[in-house]
This record gives sequence, structure tokens and C-alpha cells, in this order.
Amino acid sequence: MRYVSFEKDGKALLGVRENGAIRTLDETTLEELLARGVDLRTWASRQEGGRIESEESLTFLPPLRRPPKILCVGLNFSDHSKESNFEQPDYPTMFLRLHTSLVAHNAPIVRPRVSDSLDYEGEIAVVLGKGGRHIRKEDALSHVAGYALFNDASVREYQFMTPQWTMGKNFDGTGAFGPDFVTADELPPGAKGLRLETRLNGEVVQSASTDDMVFDVETLIVMLSEAVTLEAGDVIVSGTPSGVGWARNPKLLMRHGDVCEVSVEGLGTLRNKIVDEVAG
Amino acid sequence: MRYVSFEKDGKALLGVRENGAIRTLDETTLEELLARGVDLRTWASRQEGGRIESEESLTFLPPLRRPPKILCVGLNFSDHSKESNFEQPDYPTMFLRLHTSLVAHNAPIVRPRVSDSLDYEGEIAVVLGKGGRHIRKEDALSHVAGYALFNDASVREYQFMTPQWTMGKNFDGTGAFGPDFVTADELPPGAKGLRLETRLNGEVVQSASTDDMVFDVETLIVMLSEAVTLEAGDVIVSGTPSGVGWARNPKLLMRHGDVCEVSVEGLGTLRNKIVDEVAG
Repeated sequence: MRYVSFEKDGKALLGVRENGAIRTLDETTLEELLARGVDLRTWASRQEGGRIESEESLTFLPPLRRPPKILCVGLNFSDHSKESNFEQPDYPTMFLRLHTSLVAHNAPIVRPRVSDSLDYEGEIAVVLGKGGRHIRKEDALSHVAGYALFNDASVREYQFMTPQWTMGKNFDGTGAFGPDFVTADELPPGAKGLRLETRLNGEVVQSASTDDMVFDVETLIVMLSEAVTLEAGDVIVSGTPSGVGWARNPKLLMRHGDVCEVSVEGLGTLRNKIVDEVAG
Repeated sequence: MRYVSFEKDGKALLGVRENGAIRTLDETTLEELLARGVDLRTWASRQEGGRIESEESLTFLPPLRRPPKILCVGLNFSDHSKESNFEQPDYPTMFLRLHTSLVAHNAPIVRPRVSDSLDYEGEIAVVLGKGGRHIRKEDALSHVAGYALFNDASVREYQFMTPQWTMGKNFDGTGAFGPDFVTADELPPGAKGLRLETRLNGEVVQSASTDDMVFDVETLIVMLSEAVTLEAGDVIVSGTPSGVGWARNPKLLMRHGDVCEVSVEGLGTLRNKIVDEVAG
């Protein structure tokens, strides 16, 4: 099933895509349902009624606005590690995102006033339905509730100002997430074999197969849970392939008015306009 | 005032230190009070009654168990940057901690089974009472609600396995926090001019003045809020001075049974025993 979080008349609502429209389910959140251990593969079909909305009438919200954790993997496609002049580590290169950086489908990605070095990174986000520690490889995929698209937009000057990437990855309005949360049963196990494409103003700038991930979804869950207790609702943003603007010559950066799209077969398209931060 | 979060009969409670004992206030949390904008400098004195507990009878909890953000500053004492072979950056070196890594005063810091490279880092944690974006330097300290001690215990092998320190800083049971949350009015502005000391099994291993921070509390708030919307309850862990075990020759690492203490004038002492992770 494909769930959509959205805002209507000031309320945060959850809906399900059915017959080309969106049926409103309830005033609840995916965080809450996941924390309760609800099986989202079937939950929506057991909820009766609900107003039918057209997609165009909705203001999307990120599928989860306040996940317990947002765990992001850097250097997870070897061609991207190479273009970025990093050696490929044999352990996942992790950084964290803050919930304050998230933005929804159709909402603006914000180019901050302090830097014009805003770059795109098309990725797949994995949402956990079940937590745990020391999760075994054979069990790892049973911890995945579903997937969504992510644009890990990065303020490169701030990313590389110190040895840690944190600040360049956490500006407000840079973590685009959505539009749909798609339950795992609708995709191949581990979201393998899917084509990931990023477009800037319609031009393809990244194109890769999810088969080329250095650490696949199962391995990420195993390695992260070796150190950290994972929780239902945690989001693992699984890494971007080559083609980022900062690695090009000349550099390709996102500017006010640009439109960036991330598409993956079966997950749809995440679309965001770039908007300059308004002077304070 | 000095607040203490603790557990009693399975309930999370908040207390205040008075006359050498702890008076139970309410079944609430500092996160909740801070989010409501309560003035903690006076709040406890307006709460009447409450059971008196001796400190020895309590099971402490971290002052905040689930802060909206835990923003940690690396390389914030130039002598520590030097011993760690990093150039001193002119922008704060930020990494993030997850709430799952927090442990309370008196609780064990856990040496994980995958590595024996567990090191101490005594620090001061700054807790925000008011959020904001693009906070000005002259306003910055008015956003601080109070302070607490922090031991940013680090699994060094995992910290340096990739270019990002994230995993080595986020093992379960490594972020010791407490015992007290001390309101800002009880300390000098910005917690300046205080002696910070870390002891391992009673021996002083770190000793520095908070005056030696490269980026002081005001500057950190200004620079972080340039990128990120800060929120009430956010915690800024402000960095450790020189003397860490990993930089010594031979290396000094924490082992099962060791006791690590962090003390700062006016903030008390955070004490944790090191315990090996139990095999699963």
C-alpha cells in the first residue's frame, strides 16, 4: 500500500492511494502506527470510509515528520565515492540528519542565505517497522516496513568546512522526503534492482541501479544495530550514486527557481522547487 | 535550582535538590516543561509538598531522555585538537548523538563487545530553554535554560573507521548525562571560567578551564542557528579538552570495572562504572 501524509485545514492527516486518488484515513501519523506495531501492508484496507481527495488539492507532509532517528549513509555507491575523492571505506560512512531539516514533496528546498553551494543527492529512504539490536542478516528485511524517496540536499561549503559533514547536511529545508511511504511488499526485497534517477530542470543528472549499493539494506541494518538500538519509525537514507553537482567541472549547483526530481521505479517521483531563503 | 530526573516504582519523576535531599515534584519531564516555556529558575519553588528522597535511594535518569536534538562539538579545545592530530577548524566541528546512546548518572557506560577502544571525554552540556533561527550573539545566552555534565564516551575504532565519527559516538550506553540539570542563573554567564576535570579510577586525566573553549556557548548558539532551527530542550555538548586516553602513548582505555567521573565547579560530579556488554 502507498500511504500519504498531508495537511488539510491545519490538521495532519494520513491517506492511502486508491484508484488514482487519495482516501483520507485518520488523524494519525505513520510514526504512531509504526510505534504501535501496526501491519501497514493491510491496515488501510481495514479502515472504512474516508473522504476522497485529489492529489492536486493536497499539501503534502513528509511521510514521517519526526522519526526517532534519521541515519544517513554516505559513500554507498563506489562511483560516487570516487568522484568525491574519498577512498571507499569497508564500513558504512554514517551521518545523522535532524528532523528540522525535513521538507515534504512539492515544498521548497531552501537555498540558505549563507551559501550558494546547494547540491542534490537522490536516494532511497528505508523505514523500519520493528526495532532491535544485534539484528541478524537473515532477519534484517523483516524489520523494514517500507520505503520512500529522499533528496539529501547538501550545502557543500558547510559540509566540508570541518572534518564532519553534519552542518552541510542539516540546514533547514534541505531533506526532501516523500511523496509516498510504500510498504515493503510492493517492492523487491531490499529494494534491489531498481533504477534511481535524479533530474534537475528535467535533465537527468544521476542514474544508477540500487544493485550498485556498496552496503545493501540488509547489511546496513545488521551493521547499524551492532552499535545502536534501532526503533520502529527509524529512517535509513541509503546513499547517493555518482553525478552530484559539486563533483562536476564546472560545478552544477541548484539555484532559486530550479526544480529537482528524484524517481525510483515503484516509489514515484519526489519533486521540489529550489527557493532562496528569505532575508530575515 | 538543581533538578534531578529519576525513576521510582517504574515511574519517571522530576525532583529538586533542597537541603541536601531531593524533593519529588511531579510526574513530568524537563523536555515537557522546557517545551511549555516554563521558567525553571523559579518553577520548583512554586510547587508545594512532595516526598523527600535521599539521593542514595534514587535511580537517576538522564536529565532529558529524549531531547529534540543532541548537538555535539568536536575539536573545541585547541590542545585536544592538537593531541588528536586535527587542524583546528575555524567553524565548529559538529556531530550528532542519538537519544538511544544516553545513560544516567550511576548507570553503567557500556564497553561494546565489538571493540575495546572505549575512551572518556568530560564535557559540559548546554540545555536550551528557547529555540530560534538566526539567533544574534547578544541574545544567545537568553536561550540557555541550564547546564549539566556529560561524558561523551567514544568507541575510537568505530569513530575513525570512516571519515565520519558518527558510529563511534553513538553506541548504546555511551553518552553519560547528569546527574543534575542546573539552571543557568546558578553558573557564570555561558558557564565561563569553570574548572572541568575528568578522573579515571580516581586519577585526574583531563583538567581544563571552560575559558579555553575555541567556540564559546554564545558563539555555538549563533553558528548552529545560522543553519538549523533550534528548539527548547535541545542539548549542545560543548567539547572536551586534552587528555583523552586514545591520544596517550601507550593508549589508556576504559575497561570493565573502571569508574569514570566528570566534575565541574557548580555542576557536581557525574559518575559511571564501565561494564562490558553482555554477550547476546
